[in-house]
Amino acid sequence: MAAQIIDGKAFAATVREKVAGHVARLKEENGITPGLAVVLVGEDPASQVYVRSKGKQTVEAGMNSYEHKLDADTSEEDLLAVVNQLNNDPNVHGILVQLPLPGHLNEDLIINSIDPAKDVDGFHISNVGLLGTGQKSMVPCTPLGCLMMLRDHHGSLSGMDAVVIGRSNIVGKPMAQLLLGDSCTVTIAHSRTKDLPDVVRRADIVVAAVGRPEMVPGDWIKEGATVIDVGINRIERDGKNKLVGDVDYASAVERAGAITPVPGGVGPMTIACLLANTVTACCRANGLAEPEGLTA
Amino acid sequence: MAAQIIDGKAFAATVREKVAGHVARLKEENGITPGLAVVLVGEDPASQVYVRSKGKQTVEAGMNSYEHKLDADTSEEDLLAVVNQLNNDPNVHGILVQLPLPGHLNEDLIINSIDPAKDVDGFHISNVGLLGTGQKSMVPCTPLGCLMMLRDHHGSLSGMDAVVIGRSNIVGKPMAQLLLGDSCTVTIAHSRTKDLPDVVRRADIVVAAVGRPEMVPGDWIKEGATVIDVGINRIERDGKNKLVGDVDYASAVERAGAITPVPGGVGPMTIACLLANTVTACCRANGLAEPEGLTA
Repeated sequence: MAAQIIDGKAFAATVREKVAGHVARLKEENGITPGLAVVLVGEDPASQVYVRSKGKQTVEAGMNSYEHKLDADTSEEDLLAVVNQLNNDPNVHGILVQLPLPGHLNEDLIINSIDPAKDVDGFHISNVGLLGTGQKSMVPCTPLGCLMMLRDHHGSLSGMDAVVIGRSNIVGKPMAQLLLGDSCTVTIAHSRTKDLPDVVRRADIVVAAVGRPEMVPGDWIKEGATVIDVGINRIERDGKNKLVGDVDYASAVERAGAITPVPGGVGPMTIACLLANTVTACCRANGLAEPEGLTA
Repeated sequence: MAAQIIDGKAFAATVREKVAGHVARLKEENGITPGLAVVLVGEDPASQVYVRSKGKQTVEAGMNSYEHKLDADTSEEDLLAVVNQLNNDPNVHGILVQLPLPGHLNEDLIINSIDPAKDVDGFHISNVGLLGTGQKSMVPCTPLGCLMMLRDHHGSLSGMDAVVIGRSNIVGKPMAQLLLGDSCTVTIAHSRTKDLPDVVRRADIVVAAVGRPEMVPGDWIKEGATVIDVGINRIERDGKNKLVGDVDYASAVERAGAITPVPGGVGPMTIACLLANTVTACCRANGLAEPEGLTA
């Protein structure tokens, strides 16, 4: 039996709707418009596309979008000054510094200069620490999107065996923390894992976040497991450019109980969760009740 | 074949010796004496014993020990003032606020008021975040002690299957981060785990940190696995008081390849690692090379 397809595109639309609803209420009832500031340094083409897309969806959700485009040779001092200004701007509730930064800039330093309460990417070490101790935090967008889809599909995740493949700071590690917070038994596997097929085969939930095209074949997937494919890999096949995940979709869809496609799975959820984090940050900054179902 | 006993008491003595050697060098070559300040609020008898023991070992290692004993009804404001004073005291390189604090004090608030660079317990959210992103941090003492013993026994841990039972902020979660940092495939199990015996049976390394007397029987242990028992549980047996771990030692010793006893295993390592963290913090504060082998 083929798996149920988890439609990330449709789910992201419902998240954006929820966000827009909360934004409308914040405007009406509190006279507050949430604002998201995105800082882009340099002219990386992929980053430009992301930033444009973020700005567009921010405005569509009824929020204010502030874009700060800085020269590729911007000094660390000048960038820190921009971040500092945004930290102190009461109209800005979320700040995102688009990564990667040009090589002469210290990413850790810049990210950790953002006010943790406005750190809608959830990369500040304070937010990592809060998440890592089960406290209220800003949660990184991609794993938050994965968690939302899993909760939506399963209801409770308590007691499920989850395997996260990949141990990046942006996806793998925060994903593991989130699954642990929802009381899964969590295994983190990675390039040094000895018998990866065996590790994956015992999982009720598989989150693949390694960035290697189709590295997880269907026969590693336990019958009926839920597969969340975070990978977005550009490959050439039959002379055409194609986007594929970290999971071999064609074979995995035959064994999984549910699976996210690529594209149209995890991808669209990431920006939706960025918007969700911005509303959450805005509510917290103003001492208002947070929207439900929009964070971990 | 019975397991090799990992003698934590003897190992802790070698750590303390290393620390004392570095302290002597710091004094001689740099004119610096590392200092550890311990703050105790109230009269909890167990805490008093720990604090006394910490102070004694600090002095034995050649370091300065500062004890601040405050009344049980000390206000949050007054306690924060003490921490602030210690943060600003250049003779104090490590600060430890003994937990648990009396109920009217907010532990998170107090711990997060410690300068992260002096947070030798490694509980500040910045240190949790640094550890959680693979950066240099202050590492919680008990899991650091476990890691040291594992590295000493195995050399490299890369690719080993490790299971941590227990997801506390003080032991389980940082232990998982440390094992992941050493490239183990790490599983975190806990009270909601469905088939704990099965999870434990596949592990090359078992770290038990739940605080339930002898809950892990020997037949859950894979032949030849290394067992690190963090539990220190006081029980009564045959009319006598006895200390036992989270692992049933008598049966586990017959299957494990190596095992830490209780008492005399993990326990003695904790204060030794506190001393190690204090020297590390002192070196970092003074821009000096850190001692090798005393942190993660």
